[in-house]
Amino acid sequence: MHAADRLDETIRRTGSIACVGLDPRPSLLPTSLRRRHLDRHGTGVGAVAAAFVEFNQAIIDAVAGRCAAVKPQAACYEAYGSAGFAALEATVAHAEAAGIPVILDAKRGDIGSTAAHYGQMAFGGAPGLDDEAVDGMGASWMTVNPYLGADGVLPVLGDRTQGLFVLIKTSNPTSGEMQDQLLAGGTGDATSVADLAADLVAAWGAERMGTCGLSDVGAVVGATYPDHARALRLRMPDTIFLVPGYGAQGGSAGDALAGLRPDGRGAIVSSSRAICGAWQATGTDDWAAAAGDALIAMNRDLEAARR
Amino acid sequence: MHAADRLDETIRRTGSIACVGLDPRPSLLPTSLRRRHLDRHGTGVGAVAAAFVEFNQAIIDAVAGRCAAVKPQAACYEAYGSAGFAALEATVAHAEAAGIPVILDAKRGDIGSTAAHYGQMAFGGAPGLDDEAVDGMGASWMTVNPYLGADGVLPVLGDRTQGLFVLIKTSNPTSGEMQDQLLAGGTGDATSVADLAADLVAAWGAERMGTCGLSDVGAVVGATYPDHARALRLRMPDTIFLVPGYGAQGGSAGDALAGLRPDGRGAIVSSSRAICGAWQATGTDDWAAAAGDALIAMNRDLEAARR
Repeated sequence: MHAADRLDETIRRTGSIACVGLDPRPSLLPTSLRRRHLDRHGTGVGAVAAAFVEFNQAIIDAVAGRCAAVKPQAACYEAYGSAGFAALEATVAHAEAAGIPVILDAKRGDIGSTAAHYGQMAFGGAPGLDDEAVDGMGASWMTVNPYLGADGVLPVLGDRTQGLFVLIKTSNPTSGEMQDQLLAGGTGDATSVADLAADLVAAWGAERMGTCGLSDVGAVVGATYPDHARALRLRMPDTIFLVPGYGAQGGSAGDALAGLRPDGRGAIVSSSRAICGAWQATGTDDWAAAAGDALIAMNRDLEAARR
Repeated sequence: MHAADRLDETIRRTGSIACVGLDPRPSLLPTSLRRRHLDRHGTGVGAVAAAFVEFNQAIIDAVAGRCAAVKPQAACYEAYGSAGFAALEATVAHAEAAGIPVILDAKRGDIGSTAAHYGQMAFGGAPGLDDEAVDGMGASWMTVNPYLGADGVLPVLGDRTQGLFVLIKTSNPTSGEMQDQLLAGGTGDATSVADLAADLVAAWGAERMGTCGLSDVGAVVGATYPDHARALRLRMPDTIFLVPGYGAQGGSAGDALAGLRPDGRGAIVSSSRAICGAWQATGTDDWAAAAGDALIAMNRDLEAARR
C-alpha cells in the first residue's frame, strides 16, 4: 500500500490532519517520571532512554485514532547515543503497532548506496552477515534533504512504497539564506532554490502516485511562510505538505493551511512541544492526558481554519 | 584546541593528507570474519555490529600514524539500528583513542535546538535526567548540510572547538541539479548555489579560526569536479576541504588536490572502499594489512600529485 494512500486513509478515519511531534527532552519530562527512572537506572543515557520510551508510549496511546501521524525527531534520541537510538526504535514500533503512520524526522541526505542505507535504517532490508535482510525501524515516512539532488533522495526509497518528505521551505528564520535565493534561468520556470527543489519533488512524485491521487514524495513547507506555501502548491499539486512551525514557532492554523489543495487535502500539520509539553500548564504530571486534550484543541483549531 | 589545529598537527606528524573512510558493509567483510560472528552471535544485527567493530578496529590500528583522519559513514551503521549505532560509537572511540581525528560523516541538518542535539550526538553535552551532561560519540568533526542556512549549522557547534565540514559541491553525478544552479543577484557575487554555500561557510569560519590559519568550519568539495574546487578555493581561502570521490568514484589525485591552497595545505582526501576493501584483491583475508598497504599507496599517489 502506498504511504500516501495509508496517510490519506488515516486522515479520513480520524478526521485529523495533525501530526504529533515526539521530541522528548529531559526538560520536557515530569519530575516524577525523571525521578522514577533515575532511581531505577541511575544517571546515564539508559535512564534517559527508558524515560523517553515511557513518556512516548503513553502519549502514543493517548493520541492513537485522533491524529494523522506521529513524527519523532531523531536528533532528540541520537543525542543519547545507541541507548537513545534504541528508544527511537521502540517509539516507532509502538506507534506503528498502534496503527499510526510514523514520519521519522531524520532529514537525512547522502548519495547512492549510502542513501540506500538510510532507507534501510528507516524501512528495513539491510543485508545481515548471511545476506538475509534484517528489519529496519519500520517507519512509514522519512524526511530527507534535497541538496544532493536525485542521487540523495531516490535511492532512499528504492522500489519501496513508503514515503519521503523532502525539505523545500523550512520554518526557521534563516531558511531564506539558501532557499529563497532567486535563480538565473535555472530549470524550467523555477524562480528560487526552493522552487527548484519543489519542481524536482513534483517530478519524483509523479512516478510514485498513490491511488488517492497524492504521491509518496511529500514536501516540508513551514507554517511560518504561508505565501511560500501558496506558491509552492501550484508547483506541487499532488504533493502532501508536512507543515512544521505551527504554534510554538509562530504559525497560525490559517498559516499552516495556506498550502492546502482546493479539495481540502494535501497537508498535515505538525506540533510537538504544545502537545508533549501540555502537561506543564496543567499543574499535574499526567502528560498523556494533557497531550490528548491538547491534540483535541489542535484538531478543532485546524478544522475551524480548514472550513 | 581547535579542530583545525589538531588536524593540521596530525597532517604534519603523519605526513599524510589521507582520510580513511570506515564504511563497512557485510559484502566488504572477509568470509572468515563473517563466519566467526555468525557462529558467535547468530544472524541478527548484533552479529553485523560485532563484525563491523572487529573489522574497523583492526583497520584503525593498521592506519594509525599514517593518515590525517578517519571518516565513518553513519548510514552504514544506522542501517543496523541501535546495534549498528553502538558499533559506530565503538569505532569512533577506538580511533580517537588511537590519536586519529574522527570525522563523523552524518550529513545532519536541522534547526535550532534540534541542530544542537546533533552536536550533542557527535561531541557530547546532552543533559541527563539529573541535568548533568552525558558523553557523546567523541568525534572531532561532523559533516552537515547547508540547506537550512545558519540555523542548521552554527547550533551544531555552539561554543565548542570541534569542527564541521559543510556540504558545498558533492561528488555525485546529480549534485549539479541544485548546487550548480546559477543565481540571479543573490548574496554578494555568488554565482551558483554552491558558491552561495561557500560564501556562508567562509563567513561562519571567520569566527572560528585556529592558530594554524585554517578554520573549524570546513567544506565538502568532491574530487570529481576539480574546476569547481579551484573556483571554490578562491571563495574559501582559509577553509579545509574534505574531498570525497577520489579513486572509486573516478577522481584522480590531481583532481582531488585541485582545491589545495598555494601553501599546499587546506585539503584532506577521503577514500573508503579502496582501503577497507583492498584485501579483496590480495587473495588473503588479512584486511588490516591490505588496508595499511593501500593507504601507503594512496599517500604516495597524493604526495606525488602534491609536489
